[in-house]
Amino acid sequence: MTSRIEWLRGTLLATSLAFVVTSPVLAESPVLPNTVPAEFKVTDFLLDNGMEVVVIPDHRAPIVTHMVWYKIGSADEPPGKSGIAHFFEHLMFKATTNHAAGEFDRAVSDIGGSNNAFTSYDYTAFHETVAPSALELMMSFEADRMRNLILTDDVIKTERDVILEERRSRIDNSPEAVLDEEVDATLWQNQPYRIPVIGWMQEMQQLNRVDATAFYDKYYRPNNAVLIVAGDVEPDTVRALAEKTYGKVARGPDLPPRIRPVEPEQNTKRTVTLSDARVSVPSFSTQWVVPSYHSGKPGEAEALDLLAEILGGGNRSRLYQALVVQQGIASSAGAFFQGTMLDDTNFTVYGAPRGDARISDVEAAVDAEVVRIVKDGVTPSELEKAKDRYVRSMIFARDKQDSMANIYGSTLATGGNVQDVQQWTDRIRKVTADEVKAVAARYLVLARSTTGYLLPQQQAGN
Amino acid sequence: MTSRIEWLRGTLLATSLAFVVTSPVLAESPVLPNTVPAEFKVTDFLLDNGMEVVVIPDHRAPIVTHMVWYKIGSADEPPGKSGIAHFFEHLMFKATTNHAAGEFDRAVSDIGGSNNAFTSYDYTAFHETVAPSALELMMSFEADRMRNLILTDDVIKTERDVILEERRSRIDNSPEAVLDEEVDATLWQNQPYRIPVIGWMQEMQQLNRVDATAFYDKYYRPNNAVLIVAGDVEPDTVRALAEKTYGKVARGPDLPPRIRPVEPEQNTKRTVTLSDARVSVPSFSTQWVVPSYHSGKPGEAEALDLLAEILGGGNRSRLYQALVVQQGIASSAGAFFQGTMLDDTNFTVYGAPRGDARISDVEAAVDAEVVRIVKDGVTPSELEKAKDRYVRSMIFARDKQDSMANIYGSTLATGGNVQDVQQWTDRIRKVTADEVKAVAARYLVLARSTTGYLLPQQQAGN
Repeated sequence: MTSRIEWLRGTLLATSLAFVVTSPVLAESPVLPNTVPAEFKVTDFLLDNGMEVVVIPDHRAPIVTHMVWYKIGSADEPPGKSGIAHFFEHLMFKATTNHAAGEFDRAVSDIGGSNNAFTSYDYTAFHETVAPSALELMMSFEADRMRNLILTDDVIKTERDVILEERRSRIDNSPEAVLDEEVDATLWQNQPYRIPVIGWMQEMQQLNRVDATAFYDKYYRPNNAVLIVAGDVEPDTVRALAEKTYGKVARGPDLPPRIRPVEPEQNTKRTVTLSDARVSVPSFSTQWVVPSYHSGKPGEAEALDLLAEILGGGNRSRLYQALVVQQGIASSAGAFFQGTMLDDTNFTVYGAPRGDARISDVEAAVDAEVVRIVKDGVTPSELEKAKDRYVRSMIFARDKQDSMANIYGSTLATGGNVQDVQQWTDRIRKVTADEVKAVAARYLVLARSTTGYLLPQQQAGN
Repeated sequence: MTSRIEWLRGTLLATSLAFVVTSPVLAESPVLPNTVPAEFKVTDFLLDNGMEVVVIPDHRAPIVTHMVWYKIGSADEPPGKSGIAHFFEHLMFKATTNHAAGEFDRAVSDIGGSNNAFTSYDYTAFHETVAPSALELMMSFEADRMRNLILTDDVIKTERDVILEERRSRIDNSPEAVLDEEVDATLWQNQPYRIPVIGWMQEMQQLNRVDATAFYDKYYRPNNAVLIVAGDVEPDTVRALAEKTYGKVARGPDLPPRIRPVEPEQNTKRTVTLSDARVSVPSFSTQWVVPSYHSGKPGEAEALDLLAEILGGGNRSRLYQALVVQQGIASSAGAFFQGTMLDDTNFTVYGAPRGDARISDVEAAVDAEVVRIVKDGVTPSELEKAKDRYVRSMIFARDKQDSMANIYGSTLATGGNVQDVQQWTDRIRKVTADEVKAVAARYLVLARSTTGYLLPQQQAGN
């Protein structure tokens, strides 16, 4: 569990189930919206077929990051077809009518580039980092697989075995991952984020060519995609190349608005407990349903971001200072908020005991900090420091070209626009201490939370 | 919470959320499948338009029970449209092209009859009890509203206000009902039984004429309906009248198989707690996902029925004897199993403390009985007595004409057939003690259960 700022520094969300990443290499984790100084001169435009294009010039090094984000994630899947969005991430690496399977990967590695893909609740993204001279080739490959995949029963069966094995190794073999899945299924009573991105095993096993073809034809269209190009390239060049490649792909039928089932009011305290012999150190996390940047009222998500930062966003946070440094009862303690989501999202606090401390002691201490911030709010000083850390984090983010690409891509794929990214630090700067206290009081109600416990040994009972 | 046998005796499931009943009068609760002695001579046949007809002659009194069961329940609803099945139960009492709103109800009461309707996860049923001479009139009204409802925006808005008020009064005003909803949403991680039959408020508010018309056109068709006529009437008469009335309704498009999302493997212990000042006596219930008569392997549901009866099916059950009679710590304790469901269903144990006993004492004692029956199974003597009670319960069931109609209707609406009902006591008779122990051991694992707590006062925290 990492704080937002750690994400901005480029830390991988390696243990999170929110993102399912296809090898060959690990993808950068998508990061949260942030502002971009004027010198970045971000350009955005639409191709005639509806494909959105964002260009982020960055001439410090002769490389370019090329990403295509499809506005289709696991939360858009039809009932009973869980896993098909991630399955499609895999299928996109198979043969097309123009290229054999693996040809795209080899073309990237032959020129010393890297490529990857990832799937989340709200989007599926494909990306390559290469020399600028290879940008047209990347676009050509990417535009080709947008429409020309060959989906045979044989391809489906082979790749389905791969995702089933991926589920076995990444989820079913990991007590932490199994617990996370059931916590999600408990926290979310109605919203599709309760379904794992990788899919439920029994539904993945049934995915077939008919499902895949329908999914491909519906969602893999230029008018459902966002192209992000960051790096050593000019907007005019990107536009010309994009029109030459992606521009030749026919627009698909208009897609309906992404209106999904939403959460009912929650009224109960829920717990989810997994005891497993493979667990050595107990841990817990408590989650609440809160608004995201897209679903919240103006300023709410910004206040939640600062709340998470002050409460548990790193070594200077209240939770870390109280539990790890002062009381010495916890080996870890913190909080995070995943704001860049299309629908309501989760706010999490967590902790694990150290030495002889019991998990119940750590939970009580975390709860006490939650109650305190709800009751007394935050100080002007800690609010200013949190804001400063966010602004400084942008300096680190700008150092990584693909971080900027991820910020724009994830924002545009979850209902935001370029202005939302550019104005984000201004909005953060405007948050008041009262607003932070208000979101804490409104959302962090322990009697309406979900706590997951990962315990080392079998509990009593049977 | 009532045992299955109490259901068969005609007890209303008044507090269950599984059935949403429209006034004017309380419906009989649907009951579970059972066998019927030969003297009942049940006849079943299909009309040319695909409507299934079951006739259960019973000449002891000059009355007839007329029911139409539609194979459409809340678990068939599209995502985000929860409550529409129950909404339709209400809309069916509005005006048609041939009859004003209320005309059907008045026709029934004018002849001294009674009528009602109810909605569950798997079906929606409409029924009237009248003199045999009025059977054709009932069929005529029922066949009319199968296709001729006038669904205007005004009708939708008015009746939507009614169901919203029904939700407020029946669910939101009842801590027990609110808890039950969130327990269901927790127990079921994927299967649609996690969604309340009455619907989530925020989705009910959005139901509109377009949704309603599409739903009506898809599901309210003779080939998606089962007609049950029980009482003082002969099969030939029913056939002639049914052909004259229902037979004139055109067959609708074939419906796809009712294949819904199913549960993943469950791996955790979950709890759901609601503390409310309106609660005076604490209580709890623990549930497991288990197979139903339709989803289980042969014999599993029969074994679960006997397990529920022996463990907690009434005053002679282990839980009642141990907790209420011998230890004196509980005011109530029992178990039940809802077998007549299309998909996997739930097995429940429950209890409430008496006097100075704590709820944790009662839960520990219930858990101990669960562990004991898992470990040691049941005795031949208690198994035989449980079987005898089931067979005797049929004698009571036969005394109520509408019980038989409900048994056939609910079975046929959940994937069963007439033979399943007729052979049920034979199958119950064949269950062995080993089979009962096997289902207990397989399904009643406390580390994979969901427990709901209803507590009298606000817990600590905030």
